[in-house]
Amino acid sequence: MATLKDIAARTGLSVNTVSLALRGSRRISSDTRRKVEDAAGALDYTPNHAAKSLISRRTMTIGLLLTDVTSPVLTQVARSVELTLKKHGYVTLLAASNGDQEEESRALATFRARQVDGMLVYPNSHDALDEVARLRDAGTPVVLLAGPDDTPLDLVCIDERHGAEAAVRHLIEIGHRRIGLMSSTEMHGNRQKQQGYADALAAAGIAYDDALVVDPLGNSASHGFEAVARLMARPGPKPTALFVDNDPLAIGALRWCQLNGVAVPDDLALVGFDNVEAGAFAAIPLTTVDYPVDQVAEIAVQRLVRRIENEATPDDDTPVRIRPHLVVRQSTAART
Amino acid sequence: MATLKDIAARTGLSVNTVSLALRGSRRISSDTRRKVEDAAGALDYTPNHAAKSLISRRTMTIGLLLTDVTSPVLTQVARSVELTLKKHGYVTLLAASNGDQEEESRALATFRARQVDGMLVYPNSHDALDEVARLRDAGTPVVLLAGPDDTPLDLVCIDERHGAEAAVRHLIEIGHRRIGLMSSTEMHGNRQKQQGYADALAAAGIAYDDALVVDPLGNSASHGFEAVARLMARPGPKPTALFVDNDPLAIGALRWCQLNGVAVPDDLALVGFDNVEAGAFAAIPLTTVDYPVDQVAEIAVQRLVRRIENEATPDDDTPVRIRPHLVVRQSTAART
Repeated sequence: MATLKDIAARTGLSVNTVSLALRGSRRISSDTRRKVEDAAGALDYTPNHAAKSLISRRTMTIGLLLTDVTSPVLTQVARSVELTLKKHGYVTLLAASNGDQEEESRALATFRARQVDGMLVYPNSHDALDEVARLRDAGTPVVLLAGPDDTPLDLVCIDERHGAEAAVRHLIEIGHRRIGLMSSTEMHGNRQKQQGYADALAAAGIAYDDALVVDPLGNSASHGFEAVARLMARPGPKPTALFVDNDPLAIGALRWCQLNGVAVPDDLALVGFDNVEAGAFAAIPLTTVDYPVDQVAEIAVQRLVRRIENEATPDDDTPVRIRPHLVVRQSTAART
Repeated sequence: MATLKDIAARTGLSVNTVSLALRGSRRISSDTRRKVEDAAGALDYTPNHAAKSLISRRTMTIGLLLTDVTSPVLTQVARSVELTLKKHGYVTLLAASNGDQEEESRALATFRARQVDGMLVYPNSHDALDEVARLRDAGTPVVLLAGPDDTPLDLVCIDERHGAEAAVRHLIEIGHRRIGLMSSTEMHGNRQKQQGYADALAAAGIAYDDALVVDPLGNSASHGFEAVARLMARPGPKPTALFVDNDPLAIGALRWCQLNGVAVPDDLALVGFDNVEAGAFAAIPLTTVDYPVDQVAEIAVQRLVRRIENEATPDDDTPVRIRPHLVVRQSTAART
C-alpha cells in the first residue's frame, strides 16, 4: 500500500504538502495538486480513512437532507453529491423530510446524534431556518442547497428566480402574452419561481392575471394533470402558454393536453423546470430550465469539506446562486 | 404529556400489556391492540423515544440501502418504508451502493458504525450476500428486499420471475410469438425476470431466440432508447412485442418507436415493469407489472421491527415473495 511518504518521495514535496493537496486545500496551487494527484494515481494510493478518522475524530460521514426522496431532480443531486463526497473520502447518509417541519427537525437531530461531520440541507421552508442556524452555531458545518437571498447561512443553490424569468421571457419572445403559471412552492415560503414569472411579465408590460395561475397542490405528474384541467376549465380566454415549476408536473399537463385535443405547442406551449430525463423523452420533448446538478453538488461539497477541515476561505461566506439556462425543445415553438 | 400508565388506567389493562400493544407485539390480540390505540389517540399519547432508546440502548434509527437512489420505484419504496417506520417511532437513514460492491460494503459498515438498530437492504448482487450474512450473524437485524430463492437470510420481496412470466404470457395471449426481452439484471446475478420470460415462452412452446434479447447496459430512458435501436437494427424478422424490465427503459423505447415510425402497440407492443407514474402518463400509457410498494414496505418493516424488538415469530424465518400483478394499458393490444 502506497503512503503519503511515497508520494512525497516521488514528487519531491513535503508529506504535509502532499496531505493538504490530497484534501483539496486551497493553500496548495493547482499545479502542485495535479502533480500530487498524478503521483497518487501512479502509486495506486488510497487514503486510510480509519486512521484519518481516528486522528481527527471524524466519522467521514455526511448527512444530506432532501425534502422529497421521490423527486427526480433531488435524487439526481443526491447521487452527484454522493459521488463527489466519495472522492473526498466521505460516505453520504440521506434522509427526507417529506415537506414536514417536524420530520426535518427529527432528521437533523438524527444526523447529529449519529455524529455526521457535516450536513447538506434542502430546507422545507425558506422561513424556518432557525434549527439549521442552531446546528451551525453549535459547530456543525452545514451548507444549504436552497434558501432565501438574505440568509446568513452557507448557501449553494440555483437562482430559481432567474431560471423562471428566462423561461417566461422565452415564451414572450416567441409571441405569447397570455402565459399561465403552475407552481406550488408558495406553501413553503419560497416564491422565487413566482417572482421570476412576475418579473418577466412586468418587463414586457404584461399585467399579472390571477386567472392564469394554478396551484397543483403537489409535485407529481398526476398533480400536473389535475391542475391543468382546472386551469383550462376556467371561464374567459385560455392561456396560450404555461410555465410549470417542475418537469413531472409538466409531463402530467402534457398528457392532459394530449387526451383533450389541446395541441402542444400550437394550442398551449409548455415549459418545465429541472431538465429531468423523462422530459427529454416525453411525447413532445419538454422545453425546460436546466438544473445544473453536478455543478451544485461539486461546489456545495467542496464548501462543506473546507468547513469540516477548517480550511474555509472568506469566499465561502458568500452565497453561491448559480444561474440555470433554458433548454429549448419542441414543447415551445414560435406561434404561426 | 400522557404516559403508558394513563393508557393503562383508562383501559383497565396492565402497563406491560399497553406497552406491548403499542409496539405491535403479536402476543396481544388485535381487539386489545385496538382498545389501546384508541385510548392512546384519545389521550394524545406520544411515545418518549429518548427514554425508550436509553432503556433499550436503541438509537431508533434504521438504515435502508438502495442500489440506485435515482430509480423511481426504489425511491417510492424508500418513501413508503420511511413513513411506515415513522409509525413505529424510527427514523430512516438511506444510503446507495450505485451498483458497486465496495460501496455496498462501505454503506453497510457506515450503518453499523452509526449504530442503526436494523437494516433493510437491496443487495447489488444475488451472489454476494456474505457481508449481509455476517452482519446478521453478528446480531444486527437485517431484512433483504431482493434476493435469491435459497437465501437463509430474512427476505421480503416481489416475485420478479412470476411478474415477468405474467407480462410475457399476456403478450402471448394477445397473439404475439416473436417477443423480445430488454433486461440488464444479468450483471448482478439476478436472472429472475429473464427466467420468467423464458418460462412463459417455454409454456407456450415458443423457442427462446437470442436475437430477440438485448441488454440496455443501464436503467434509464436513454439506455432504453439506445437498446431498442440496436435490437430493431438487427437483421432478420423484427419482434412484434417487447418485454422491458423497468418502466424508465420502456419510456425510452417508446420514444425511439415514436421517432422511427414504429407504432405502439400495432408494430411493437411494449410491457414495462414497476408501474411508476411516468409510465401511466406516457404518450402511450404503458402496460406494466405493478411493484406493490406499500405492501413490500409494510411487511418488511414489520418483520424488521419484530427482529429488533425480539418478537420475531417462526413465520419470520420464511421468505415472503409477493406476486405482482399486471396492469394492462394501451401499449399492448390484441393484434388485428
